[in-house]
Amino acid sequence: MPTTIRAEVITIGDEILFGQIIDTNTQWISTELTNIGIRTVRKTSVGDEASVILSALTDAATRSEVVIITGGLGPTKDDITKKTLCEFFGVGLVRNQTALDLVTTFFEKRGREMTDLNRMQADLPENAEYIQNDWGTAPGMWFDHDDTVFISLPGVPFEMKSLMTYRMLPKLKERFEMPVIRHKMIRTIGIGESFLAERIEAWEDALPPHIRLAYLPSFGQVKLRLTATGTDNEQLGLELERQVAAVLPLIGNHVYGYDSDEIETVVIRLLKEKNLMLGVAESCTGGQVAATLTKVPGVSAVFAGGVVSYSNEVKIIALGVNPETLGAFGAVSEPTVSEMAEGVRVMLGTDVGIATSGIAGPDGGTPDKPVGTIWIAVATDKGTVTKHLKLGQYREQNITLTTTYLLNLLREQLL
Amino acid sequence: MPTTIRAEVITIGDEILFGQIIDTNTQWISTELTNIGIRTVRKTSVGDEASVILSALTDAATRSEVVIITGGLGPTKDDITKKTLCEFFGVGLVRNQTALDLVTTFFEKRGREMTDLNRMQADLPENAEYIQNDWGTAPGMWFDHDDTVFISLPGVPFEMKSLMTYRMLPKLKERFEMPVIRHKMIRTIGIGESFLAERIEAWEDALPPHIRLAYLPSFGQVKLRLTATGTDNEQLGLELERQVAAVLPLIGNHVYGYDSDEIETVVIRLLKEKNLMLGVAESCTGGQVAATLTKVPGVSAVFAGGVVSYSNEVKIIALGVNPETLGAFGAVSEPTVSEMAEGVRVMLGTDVGIATSGIAGPDGGTPDKPVGTIWIAVATDKGTVTKHLKLGQYREQNITLTTTYLLNLLREQLL
Repeated sequence: MPTTIRAEVITIGDEILFGQIIDTNTQWISTELTNIGIRTVRKTSVGDEASVILSALTDAATRSEVVIITGGLGPTKDDITKKTLCEFFGVGLVRNQTALDLVTTFFEKRGREMTDLNRMQADLPENAEYIQNDWGTAPGMWFDHDDTVFISLPGVPFEMKSLMTYRMLPKLKERFEMPVIRHKMIRTIGIGESFLAERIEAWEDALPPHIRLAYLPSFGQVKLRLTATGTDNEQLGLELERQVAAVLPLIGNHVYGYDSDEIETVVIRLLKEKNLMLGVAESCTGGQVAATLTKVPGVSAVFAGGVVSYSNEVKIIALGVNPETLGAFGAVSEPTVSEMAEGVRVMLGTDVGIATSGIAGPDGGTPDKPVGTIWIAVATDKGTVTKHLKLGQYREQNITLTTTYLLNLLREQLL
Repeated sequence: MPTTIRAEVITIGDEILFGQIIDTNTQWISTELTNIGIRTVRKTSVGDEASVILSALTDAATRSEVVIITGGLGPTKDDITKKTLCEFFGVGLVRNQTALDLVTTFFEKRGREMTDLNRMQADLPENAEYIQNDWGTAPGMWFDHDDTVFISLPGVPFEMKSLMTYRMLPKLKERFEMPVIRHKMIRTIGIGESFLAERIEAWEDALPPHIRLAYLPSFGQVKLRLTATGTDNEQLGLELERQVAAVLPLIGNHVYGYDSDEIETVVIRLLKEKNLMLGVAESCTGGQVAATLTKVPGVSAVFAGGVVSYSNEVKIIALGVNPETLGAFGAVSEPTVSEMAEGVRVMLGTDVGIATSGIAGPDGGTPDKPVGTIWIAVATDKGTVTKHLKLGQYREQNITLTTTYLLNLLREQLL
């Protein structure tokens, strides 16, 4: 098998260094590199200062076969990246006609006047291979220098991602002989990382050395990522399928999807398949369940709407919750959340109603019902199912977890 | 004035390097360092590999007075950071009794058994100053070595932030003689960065050299951050106040708050001051407005709830929108959004009703009403105010911007 190609990512820009923005580019880049079999060994973030950039480039070139540089290409920032690359390679800047034509067209289309600053965006280091950027005015550049490939990209995430996806990643795959890498993600919900690890321990220990397993936990979920390395793409795909088939019986109903599935997209898919309309009644989540569903394009086919019944009055007026239920059991109780789910179903005339009621915190807790006490419910024509959640102290975390667990309870009922 | 102290941040961990998680720690750390007058000059992210960590430490020490290392302190990861620090400093590991007592108490309190691995968390490099971590079991460590301060922190954000805030930042302020730095953030909404820059150009050009201005744009908002550097804390505060007073008349009503204010907290504060209850009717935002308000603790004093009227039926049933209005003008129209805002006010019996209706995309656009066509409304006892937004192609961005602009329209009406 070919040897591992090593990469480093260098991010240029004061705004990242001083903490004004969070850098999400390098995370995205290293994920993509991992996916094609290139190992990121270091990430460096430096300011708009030539000497510092030069030393970062020099260091990186001694360690890695691929150096990816993002940022410092804007027209206002003195083009620090291009000047510094010229100094690093010992070359001058020349105007690239293709790049100039592209920038000219970009401005003509928008009816905007072009300045000298804009024209200078077409000046590239002599040894650069110009890589066309169809998504903005900063050029993509590729340098093959002393057995190291240097790639320069704009820092704007949308331009950077497009250039990487459509130009640089295919070119890297051509340039280097790399192992074939395939991934399969199994998405689980409602089971903790250590419990999951215990359940699948024997299976995990028996994995062949060319298939690695990673646990990726997030709020209420654990993703299992299988990475297979080899030479035969089809063969690896089959092996991954076999491994998934072997582990599934051990995890059972906790698996809600694969690869890029999200719990909300899975639930919406199930509702579409069964031709069911959904209504949502939210107390402690305050609109988060509806907002999570609404983020998915085309949700209107299965989502009629909902009621955010933050006050008891709204629970009575808009959901038809019985005031006596509220009086006897309180808003955060199994009877109330059941009536909310059933109420929204009746009021909005939907097939399914789901509901949340709880104490998200930081205030409002009592000895009987401490912060984190939450009830969720799913009402269908077959009846109402409820669940009691005992969550923690943090408001935003409680809202996120309740949303996830409610969508999962709905998924279980739809199966 | 004292010279600038330079810092580097080294993040240790394969999970960050391979793109499995986004590193938010270093952004937080460099913001905090900037706030006390320390300049971050480089950030480096390396894997769990001793030789790579060693070279990163060596490089950083030659360039900076402060080196902050996060991660690699967990019990399972072979304590790579501590071992490597020992190698770097040429010292051995010794068990620290205070650290051991703390870990022991931590486990006793939770009724969990302690293993040898846990006990080893109390082993520190001989030259380490132990810094008590009251938020977890990994130790904080401080090293003063050859005029450079090395700080080692766990990678868990909550533990890292607590240790920095309560232990390390005060200690850094003591250790180095630093200039006094004060910040003032002016938060604006509804005016683009370039328009804002034009309006305040003369004021900006006249700023004294020790007061710097940064534009921090985000969805629909631009924050203006003033940073004053000097020696007299009180004097700087007065100067900043004077500059804010001078620029305010140029920006006018676009300023919604200062420093850590958010548009939703400002709106909630205004509602509390005026003792008004709010109801929300959402179509295209699908719950996002309600969810944004609900994230703020104590919102129940002014927020009764809302209706997510995704379908036309729900607009009629739950908000009392006239079917003839929907028929004549469509759901995305000024008359419909007005009736939604007025309807939620009547239905939920609140003082104020606010509403959104629009085409968030990617589907549903027509030549007359392309994707991004959105109406928002605020209804009070004085009448109803509406606004037409022409936004872009991206669903999530449209939902976020609509939420921000609606809360701002509400703010304007409350003033």
